[in-house]
Amino acid sequence: MTQELRTRIFSELDALVLIDPHTHIDALNPASRTLADILGYHYYTELAHSAGMPKEQIEDPEISPKEKCRRLIENLGPLDNTIQYSWFIEMAQKFFGFEGDRVDAENWEALYDVAEEKMSSAEWASQVLEISKLEAVFLTNNFDDPLEGFDTSKYVPCLRTDDLVFHLTRREVQDRLQHVAGAAVTDVPSLRAAIGGLFEHFKSKNARACAISLPPDFAPARVSEGRAATAIDAVLRKKLEASEADQRAASNYIFWTLAEFCAEVGLPFDLMIGVNRGVYKDGVFQGQDLYDSRVSMIQYKELFNAFPRVTFPISVLASVTNQELTSYAWIFPNVVTNGHWWYSNTPTFIEHDAAARLEAVPRTKQIGYYSDMYKLEFALPKFAMYKRILAKILAERFVIDRGWTEAQAIDLGKQVLRGNVETVFGYK
Amino acid sequence: MTQELRTRIFSELDALVLIDPHTHIDALNPASRTLADILGYHYYTELAHSAGMPKEQIEDPEISPKEKCRRLIENLGPLDNTIQYSWFIEMAQKFFGFEGDRVDAENWEALYDVAEEKMSSAEWASQVLEISKLEAVFLTNNFDDPLEGFDTSKYVPCLRTDDLVFHLTRREVQDRLQHVAGAAVTDVPSLRAAIGGLFEHFKSKNARACAISLPPDFAPARVSEGRAATAIDAVLRKKLEASEADQRAASNYIFWTLAEFCAEVGLPFDLMIGVNRGVYKDGVFQGQDLYDSRVSMIQYKELFNAFPRVTFPISVLASVTNQELTSYAWIFPNVVTNGHWWYSNTPTFIEHDAAARLEAVPRTKQIGYYSDMYKLEFALPKFAMYKRILAKILAERFVIDRGWTEAQAIDLGKQVLRGNVETVFGYK
Amino acid sequence: MTQELRTRIFSELDALVLIDPHTHIDALNPASRTLADILGYHYYTELAHSAGMPKEQIEDPEISPKEKCRRLIENLGPLDNTIQYSWFIEMAQKFFGFEGDRVDAENWEALYDVAEEKMSSAEWASQVLEISKLEAVFLTNNFDDPLEGFDTSKYVPCLRTDDLVFHLTRREVQDRLQHVAGAAVTDVPSLRAAIGGLFEHFKSKNARACAISLPPDFAPARVSEGRAATAIDAVLRKKLEASEADQRAASNYIFWTLAEFCAEVGLPFDLMIGVNRGVYKDGVFQGQDLYDSRVSMIQYKELFNAFPRVTFPISVLASVTNQELTSYAWIFPNVVTNGHWWYSNTPTFIEHDAAARLEAVPRTKQIGYYSDMYKLEFALPKFAMYKRILAKILAERFVIDRGWTEAQAIDLGKQVLRGNVETVFGYK
Repeated sequence: MTQELRTRIFSELDALVLIDPHTHIDALNPASRTLADILGYHYYTELAHSAGMPKEQIEDPEISPKEKCRRLIENLGPLDNTIQYSWFIEMAQKFFGFEGDRVDAENWEALYDVAEEKMSSAEWASQVLEISKLEAVFLTNNFDDPLEGFDTSKYVPCLRTDDLVFHLTRREVQDRLQHVAGAAVTDVPSLRAAIGGLFEHFKSKNARACAISLPPDFAPARVSEGRAATAIDAVLRKKLEASEADQRAASNYIFWTLAEFCAEVGLPFDLMIGVNRGVYKDGVFQGQDLYDSRVSMIQYKELFNAFPRVTFPISVLASVTNQELTSYAWIFPNVVTNGHWWYSNTPTFIEHDAAARLEAVPRTKQIGYYSDMYKLEFALPKFAMYKRILAKILAERFVIDRGWTEAQAIDLGKQVLRGNVETVFGYK
Repeated sequence: MTQELRTRIFSELDALVLIDPHTHIDALNPASRTLADILGYHYYTELAHSAGMPKEQIEDPEISPKEKCRRLIENLGPLDNTIQYSWFIEMAQKFFGFEGDRVDAENWEALYDVAEEKMSSAEWASQVLEISKLEAVFLTNNFDDPLEGFDTSKYVPCLRTDDLVFHLTRREVQDRLQHVAGAAVTDVPSLRAAIGGLFEHFKSKNARACAISLPPDFAPARVSEGRAATAIDAVLRKKLEASEADQRAASNYIFWTLAEFCAEVGLPFDLMIGVNRGVYKDGVFQGQDLYDSRVSMIQYKELFNAFPRVTFPISVLASVTNQELTSYAWIFPNVVTNGHWWYSNTPTFIEHDAAARLEAVPRTKQIGYYSDMYKLEFALPKFAMYKRILAKILAERFVIDRGWTEAQAIDLGKQVLRGNVETVFGYK
Repeated sequence: MTQELRTRIFSELDALVLIDPHTHIDALNPASRTLADILGYHYYTELAHSAGMPKEQIEDPEISPKEKCRRLIENLGPLDNTIQYSWFIEMAQKFFGFEGDRVDAENWEALYDVAEEKMSSAEWASQVLEISKLEAVFLTNNFDDPLEGFDTSKYVPCLRTDDLVFHLTRREVQDRLQHVAGAAVTDVPSLRAAIGGLFEHFKSKNARACAISLPPDFAPARVSEGRAATAIDAVLRKKLEASEADQRAASNYIFWTLAEFCAEVGLPFDLMIGVNRGVYKDGVFQGQDLYDSRVSMIQYKELFNAFPRVTFPISVLASVTNQELTSYAWIFPNVVTNGHWWYSNTPTFIEHDAAARLEAVPRTKQIGYYSDMYKLEFALPKFAMYKRILAKILAERFVIDRGWTEAQAIDLGKQVLRGNVETVFGYK
């Protein structure tokens, strides 16, 4: 009975047309060209490497996409238990009519060829969106992205600010900022002016959020103007030679300035809390980052108090931080729970984390899910995974445990899947 | 089959007459007078505020109880997913014959009027206890509470000591202490004498526990007599101007002294570990506290070793601390697990935390639940929530997973719900 | 339907002949002689003590094994809810034909006598292995264990290194090391030579791993040769009087040296992360250790990067660390998840932790379980507990939630139970 109930709820949720509120899609090149774009996603390369495949075999610059696929598929056996592998199979089934439940040395080439043919169509990206029931996807754009050449109501810009906050010590970042600002950035006023220009530009292009990923030891603090002047001066002039104290003060100042502009122009500020970059230094591309789960939302106390009018949709990397996120969203009007990020984006953690949110955070303050994808094909299996878990939670914990009607449960599911994306990000 | 099993076990647990071992009931004014006393509970005001209702609308001193209810009910829609909302509906159904599953603009006024009429009866508090199958409730009394005018076998006093440990720096607290001591408190000996008097007074009034809530960075340590003398002197004379080091040493000294008196007079010492006060400074009344989940029971190592004869019933604010609590109760004879506190008092966390305790801590060392309520009406829905989860755990994890008989499972449930309250607190 | 599915999967898993990859078995005395060897296991003595039994009654050196059993059994009532108690009953049933579900004052003596008779057989250890379907068990040998007098293909040696890393400050440890080295250990070169000799000896005796348990604040770091020389000199000469800094540097140097030898001779290095020793100083034998769950795998970043060719099977003491372990095993090729250790070896934590690993870590990189036992009889109930939970996860999360066939689920179960023990430790 429970399983039928889950299936019925899933069907209703699955009928919904969605907006994906956080992705890394390149709007000018949104879909895959070959299966290598799919299998080249770090979720596969890092797992294949972890299971023993040498990095050199994966990242060999000389090989063709087809050869890359051949090599990777031969190394997927040890991962066929993972949920990530199931995404691959679901994509093969839904987009390319694949009928098995394993892709291996025997059958991969036919799949590759079918995929390549379909992907070669000029309509492929549109077809993926159609099949995936996706109306729009949010991007994560570098601050100097011209945001030109695409439909910003379908590919919705968001301002990514990691470089500004954490890498202004790099000459390249300073150059890009001055280039996009059209003026020298030499001190606090010119830096603020440049940042203000970014917000103006992004807003004019339908941007719906400012976003940043943050290391576990980051604790935003307001920096005095005097201290900011010294720190920004050091960072701009000494770059990577600036003292750690100056670098930290500069990061804090810029972060705070971003929050001020979010307040001024009315943009939500997506915080993605908890990642340590480059922990496994010999890992594959995008497969080097890990974390320290000893992080607390208390580090953001001053920020949440200082910016009551900025909405902070927050993702946490570790499931052990989810209760704090739940509690802070229950108390702070400006804190919203946002999806299930990266290492917490697997069923056991999603189930535990989503259940805790659904029963304690106001229903209007929960963004259920985003795909975080780099290529459009991934939204379908990732959202499907989430919707199955959401249906399970709604069936078991709301209909059965709490006596809700199916219709009530489905309404709640639809709201966190779609309705809140519209209201929180002012989409539509 | 599982659901029927759960229902049968729940029925047996639900037939039990209970003692609620931790509440904030005012014994002279234990039940609600209007629905505003129920909806004014911080669980509703803070969630309504979090969902967008301005604090000023909630805390407007000019409005009537009825107007306050009208306003709050209009703002409950965004919380109707929460377990807290379900408590409200269950109270409306069980106490006032409400038949729907939503209270809204259409039907609230009739409910308000029915409630007001029932609550106006001189027997209302007794009726609530009767309907709730509550035999007694433990209070949490300020140290200078005269404990007069009520039946202390029904409303059982407990000595709350937060003010003594953390706020002796306040003139008002010093004045209250001297007043109740009937003597000047000027140094360590007079302070000890005053505290000893409190214990004597409370014991004479049937007190069953000493209780305190503690911030996550508190780590009790024994303080030497010399250091204590300096610190207490500084705190008594300089008050809020005392140095942080003196304040900390004074807190530690007083805390340790409380444990000594608990040992002397034979009172359990309820520790509620992990809360940070006033994190959201513009939050509604009692809706400002949050936490840092980076806390460890190792901080209490010295205490548990030093006081083998004091029983410490312990509540932790964050579910991530529950495994440590479970392990420490498994090893230390004087550590008892105590209920599911505040931000961990929602079904997903209760289920995970209670299951872990039930399978690894001696059955005699677990206090299943307390309501933490401010008004009597809340025990019913809160205990009902817990009993449903307890029945689920017993059905799934004991009867099904481990082959227990239903009778064995029900016995375990009854022991953690009621039996252990009697033995741990020496009630009856 | 789910329960039948679980039962079918369990039966298949339960038919497997196993290798137990981590125990504390004494190969010369592997099985129990009386029931007192079973009930004397710290899991029972510490729980009985925690529930109120005085340590003196348990550890009275004057009493017979039978009297010890009588006393303990009279104190097991308060623990009959625990999973540890269920192990005892399962042993009584499977090894001694006991038919009840409680051992108490009425029936214990008959059980004791039956057990004593069976245990007195010269074949008892073999019978236990046979009944338990155990082909081999890994030991945890002190560095100066001669490893003589037993079949090392059945009782597989592993080099335990806690003493070397953390207790070289003790004269007794230095003496043992010099004795086994057959040479004075006076400085870094002679220490390295002695350690090298240990590895050579253990390898010659079929050792399959080096192992160590680590406190939560340990963060391995490479130590320069100069610093090592000073620190080792201080530790060897001043022993417990060596400064804390020297002790820490010496620990780090020795730990790093062990990893170097693991790389050289090709041994996996089992890391058991998170225990604080002697927290409850008046606890019973082996019932004094607890932990601080605030530990992160990031502390091992440098180690994992420095030794890409050493496999690190890792156990974590706290379930809150399990997600980090899962993520690090997903990214680092040399990190393998290893069993469910001690305070996390209870069903609720195993279920949550194992489910998270099974869906995100390559299937080749997970050691499902080890018993950690001191006497052979414990493998049966401990593995049975794990297999039931594994069957539950495979049924609910793979067959039902993800549409796997039963055969696929069983294959995955068999691989983590047995196949990976062979491949990771090079057994067979």
